[in-house]
Amino acid sequence: MIGFGAATAVEQAGEGRYETVLDAGYGMAEALNGGYLMAVLGRAAVAASPHAHPVSTAVTFHRVAKAGPAQVHVEPRKEGRTAATSRVTLVQDGRPAADALITTATLDAAAEPGWAGAAPAGLPPLDECTEVRPPSGSSGFVDRVEMRFDRSTMGWLDGRPSGRLEMRAWFRLRDGYEPDAYALAIAVDALPPVTLNLGARGWAPTVELTWHMRAVPAPGWLAVHGDGRLLADGWFDEQVEVWDSAGRLVAQSRQLARVPRP
Amino acid sequence: MIGFGAATAVEQAGEGRYETVLDAGYGMAEALNGGYLMAVLGRAAVAASPHAHPVSTAVTFHRVAKAGPAQVHVEPRKEGRTAATSRVTLVQDGRPAADALITTATLDAAAEPGWAGAAPAGLPPLDECTEVRPPSGSSGFVDRVEMRFDRSTMGWLDGRPSGRLEMRAWFRLRDGYEPDAYALAIAVDALPPVTLNLGARGWAPTVELTWHMRAVPAPGWLAVHGDGRLLADGWFDEQVEVWDSAGRLVAQSRQLARVPRP
Repeated sequence: MIGFGAATAVEQAGEGRYETVLDAGYGMAEALNGGYLMAVLGRAAVAASPHAHPVSTAVTFHRVAKAGPAQVHVEPRKEGRTAATSRVTLVQDGRPAADALITTATLDAAAEPGWAGAAPAGLPPLDECTEVRPPSGSSGFVDRVEMRFDRSTMGWLDGRPSGRLEMRAWFRLRDGYEPDAYALAIAVDALPPVTLNLGARGWAPTVELTWHMRAVPAPGWLAVHGDGRLLADGWFDEQVEVWDSAGRLVAQSRQLARVPRP
Repeated sequence: MIGFGAATAVEQAGEGRYETVLDAGYGMAEALNGGYLMAVLGRAAVAASPHAHPVSTAVTFHRVAKAGPAQVHVEPRKEGRTAATSRVTLVQDGRPAADALITTATLDAAAEPGWAGAAPAGLPPLDECTEVRPPSGSSGFVDRVEMRFDRSTMGWLDGRPSGRLEMRAWFRLRDGYEPDAYALAIAVDALPPVTLNLGARGWAPTVELTWHMRAVPAPGWLAVHGDGRLLADGWFDEQVEVWDSAGRLVAQSRQLARVPRP
């Protein structure tokens, strides 16, 4: 098993061209995890930028990405004093698998919030939360990512879905990789689909996901709070807030996804 | 004064090429309103797509767009049975002013929500809300867009900002143009910056804004609920939910913006 840093590494192969090898270990069901792919895209965007952090990432996923070689194309579109924006594309087998707009900037790790909303309620302490392992064998993702779930949001496992679009868990990478921008990218897309709590089993393909890095995260566990506002006409949304061990909002995301077909 | 429909119209000028004339009437302070620009981008994306609605739009704004001629370039990236995604660029004076990723699909106006969260509280009835007009003369935007504000979120006008990142208002277009996808695009970016309620006066440039159209809106006033979660290190977020006169969530957005400099 290679670590998260190596699994998301990119190597420059030309002006705005990066090579990567996608790691099967970050697969979930039929596809590599979207957050893992966003981490790879973020590394390429930052490598091509004068700034240190991917502060805003909007991605649309076109096709399932597979383990193995892939390319990242970075096209700078605007470079300002404070921030720079690029169009970033994940290419596999000569076709775009995902398109992104990524804005980079350099966040000050020592910055104190000017104003902050209240932390979301509901996630019990770590030792009251539950690890969920698939019934048999290894499934890749859970070997890389350690999550401890709020049991009240996991009734769907026993056929008792909560009836609410919500899920909460503690998150860390098993290899000891401490939270940074790229760990946040995977944290915002690590929860199982919140639609499981409405009894909709199956893979819920993300169509669009936008996430913002709001602060440099402290070491330790991350608290991941997910909920949704509406399921209608085959579409649902899922918002995630990630709070670090210092009690700060470090990432926020929203995705629009398709409801699994029965 | 031309109507909102004409002010956002695009005319095809070639494969994936559209011409438009941006209307000074949708200007706010130093720039044309970002929501107005998103309406124009959405029209071009839908014109180039087999689907009827811009269900997901992620935009990064590079430069201030001015009134007058502009072009919209639409590059199809993925066309599926349910949805199609394009890269869409607003070009003015030969330079990209904004880049977008737009996914189109066709929403069913008769669809009943499968699950919906509670409507946000706090917006008083229309007749208890206040219109705000600039102190002197016409300012364009308020001649096109009628908004009635929740006074409790407008204390900043009298030097008594609420101290919370929030603002709420009723919204409609003055020319009688009824809510549709393009009216929603402007509604999600029509509120003054929520940072005014933290005492930060001035224009707050949007860096990235993603919005999702969640349902076909009913005719009548729209309720616009805006709030933010964090202001830190010169950045803040603003979420907006738009609810229609039938009591449905019809649009949701989040933007990442820069705090005005004192």
